[in-house]
Amino acid sequence: MQNLSYQEAADFLKTVEDAWILIHQSPDGDAVGTGFALRYLLEAMGKRARVVCPDEIPHRYDHITAPDVEFPAKTILSVDLADLSLLGALREAFEGKIALCIDHHVSNVNYADRLCLDADASAASEVLYEIIRETGVPMTEQMAACIYTGIATDTGCFKFENATPRCHEIVAALKREFALPYAKYNRELFDIKSRSRIQLERRAIDLMEYHLDGRCTVISITKALQKELNVASDDFEGITALTLQTDGVEVGITIKEKEDGLYKLSLRSAGDANVSRICQTLGGGGHAKAAGCAIRSASLDEVKQSVVAAVAKELDAPRPESE
Amino acid sequence: MQNLSYQEAADFLKTVEDAWILIHQSPDGDAVGTGFALRYLLEAMGKRARVVCPDEIPHRYDHITAPDVEFPAKTILSVDLADLSLLGALREAFEGKIALCIDHHVSNVNYADRLCLDADASAASEVLYEIIRETGVPMTEQMAACIYTGIATDTGCFKFENATPRCHEIVAALKREFALPYAKYNRELFDIKSRSRIQLERRAIDLMEYHLDGRCTVISITKALQKELNVASDDFEGITALTLQTDGVEVGITIKEKEDGLYKLSLRSAGDANVSRICQTLGGGGHAKAAGCAIRSASLDEVKQSVVAAVAKELDAPRPESE
Repeated sequence: MQNLSYQEAADFLKTVEDAWILIHQSPDGDAVGTGFALRYLLEAMGKRARVVCPDEIPHRYDHITAPDVEFPAKTILSVDLADLSLLGALREAFEGKIALCIDHHVSNVNYADRLCLDADASAASEVLYEIIRETGVPMTEQMAACIYTGIATDTGCFKFENATPRCHEIVAALKREFALPYAKYNRELFDIKSRSRIQLERRAIDLMEYHLDGRCTVISITKALQKELNVASDDFEGITALTLQTDGVEVGITIKEKEDGLYKLSLRSAGDANVSRICQTLGGGGHAKAAGCAIRSASLDEVKQSVVAAVAKELDAPRPESE
Repeated sequence: MQNLSYQEAADFLKTVEDAWILIHQSPDGDAVGTGFALRYLLEAMGKRARVVCPDEIPHRYDHITAPDVEFPAKTILSVDLADLSLLGALREAFEGKIALCIDHHVSNVNYADRLCLDADASAASEVLYEIIRETGVPMTEQMAACIYTGIATDTGCFKFENATPRCHEIVAALKREFALPYAKYNRELFDIKSRSRIQLERRAIDLMEYHLDGRCTVISITKALQKELNVASDDFEGITALTLQTDGVEVGITIKEKEDGLYKLSLRSAGDANVSRICQTLGGGGHAKAAGCAIRSASLDEVKQSVVAAVAKELDAPRPESE
C-alpha cells in the first residue's frame, strides 16, 4: 500500500482500462456520488467504466446515476469503501484485486494496491473533486451534480462537524460554474419522505420514552412492531436521529429486537457523553458520538434497564472540560 | 433614499453615535444575527449600540446575543427590515427617523434616509459581512457567530435556492478564521425541538389529509385543537413545512381557524405550481412558492373544498416549461 497524492491518483487513473468501481452496500449519497463521478471522469477520458454495488441504488439518487453498461473488468477500483466487509456478498470476488481505493475514512484498512485517502475531507466526493482537478479533464455538469450530492449528504447538508471550510469552497466553485437545481436536489435528498416513512416516524415518536430527567431517550422497535408496520429493516435507518431531537436530550438509544432474545442497540450522543465508552461496558463499541452493541436477554425491560443504567453512569462521570 | 455601496455604508457607520438597531417582530436568525453583529461592530469602533425588537428574542439565539444596554438614541439604524409595518407597536416611534437600513429583501420599501440593499445576498448578515470587511475593523468571534447564524438560518442551512456561491465562500472564510462550534449551533438552530413541539407535529401529521391523488395536502388547525394543545399561536410556525414533506406533494395547505368564521390559509409549493396565483383567486397573494389568503365561511369543509378546487385548477393549468 502507498498513499497517493491527488496528482499521483490522477496519473494512475489515466492508465486504467475497462474499470469497475466498487461502492459499499446500503449505498449513501457519497458512495453513489463518488462512484458515478469517477465513472463520468473515466468516460470523459475515453474509457469504459461501471459502478458496481452489492445493493440496489435508491431512487433518490436518480439525478446522478446512469444506466449500467456491461463489460468484463480490466481494472478494479473502489471509492468510499473503508473495509472489504462492506462489499457483502461481492467481497470474495474482489478481495486482493483492487488497484486503487479513493476514500476519506480514517478507519480505512488499506486493502487496495494503492490508496488515495484524505481523512480531513468531508466526503470521498471531496477527495475525487481534487483528483479530477489534477487530471486536467474539464469538470462536467454530471460530475458536479455527483460531487455536490456526495458532499451535501455526508455533511448532513453542511450541518455536521465535517462541513469544513474546504467543502464550502468546493461547493461555492461548483455553484459558480454549474447552474444545477441544487435546492431541488436538497429537497429530494433531505426533506421528502414516503407516506409509510412518515407513519413510521410518527409511531417512533409515540413510542419514545424519556429517562433520567429527559437527558436520555429510548425508542424500542420490537419484532411485533416491525411486523405491524410491514417495513423493511432499512426503513428504520434514521430513526436513531429522532432520539436526539428533543430539547435537553444528551443520549438517544434505539433498541431493535432481532431473533428471539437478541437486541441490537444504537446509541447517539448530542453532547459530551461518550457513547462508545457506554457501549464498551456492554460488549460493543464505536465512536464517541455514535456507537452500538448487542445484548442477549429474555426481556426488553431488562435490556432497557441495563443500558439506561450505563448511560446514567456515563452522564454522572467526571469529564474533562468540554471544548 | 440613495442605495449605498458597501464602502459608503461602512463610511457612514463610522459617523454614527449611540445607535439603536431596529429588527423585525418575530425575529429570526438573520434579524438577530445581523442586529447583534452590527452592535458588536459599532462597539468595536468604540461606540454604544443596542438591538431593539418589538418581540422578545427566542432563547435559541442566546449564543449570539448579549445583555441589553440602555441609553438614549442618537442614531437609528435598521437591519433585515423590509417594511416599517414589521416593527409592530414600535413603528410610530421610529417612522421617518431611520438613518440607514441594511437589507437583502428585494421588497424593501425604501423607508430609510440611506439604504444599503443587496437583493442577491442570501441574508442581511451577508450584506453586513461585506460592510464589516470595508470598515477595516477586524472581524471578531462574536461577529462571526452572528454572521454565520444569519446566513445559515436564512438559507435553511444551505438548503434553499438562496444558498449562493458567495454565501458558501463567506462561510468558508469564517470557518477558516474562527474555530466556533458550528455543528452545535446547527443542532440548536435546526434540530432541537421542545417536547410540546414534537407532540404538536405528531398531531399535525395525524391530521394531514391527502387530496388530488396525493398532489395536495391539507392540515387544519381548528380553534378547538389550539385550545386542546394549549400552544401559543407562534408554535404553529413551521407546521406549513410539514405539508410538503410527503413524496409526490406539489401544494401544501395549512388552514388556521381564527375568530368565528375566519380562516387563514398558508399555501406552499414544492414544484411548478404558483400558489400566489391560487391565493389571488381567493383574495390573497404572496410569492410563487409561498402565499396566503383569508376566507370567511360558516364551515371548514367549505373552505377546504374552495381551496382544493383552486389548487386543482392551477395544477391542471398549462404552464410554460419549468426550468
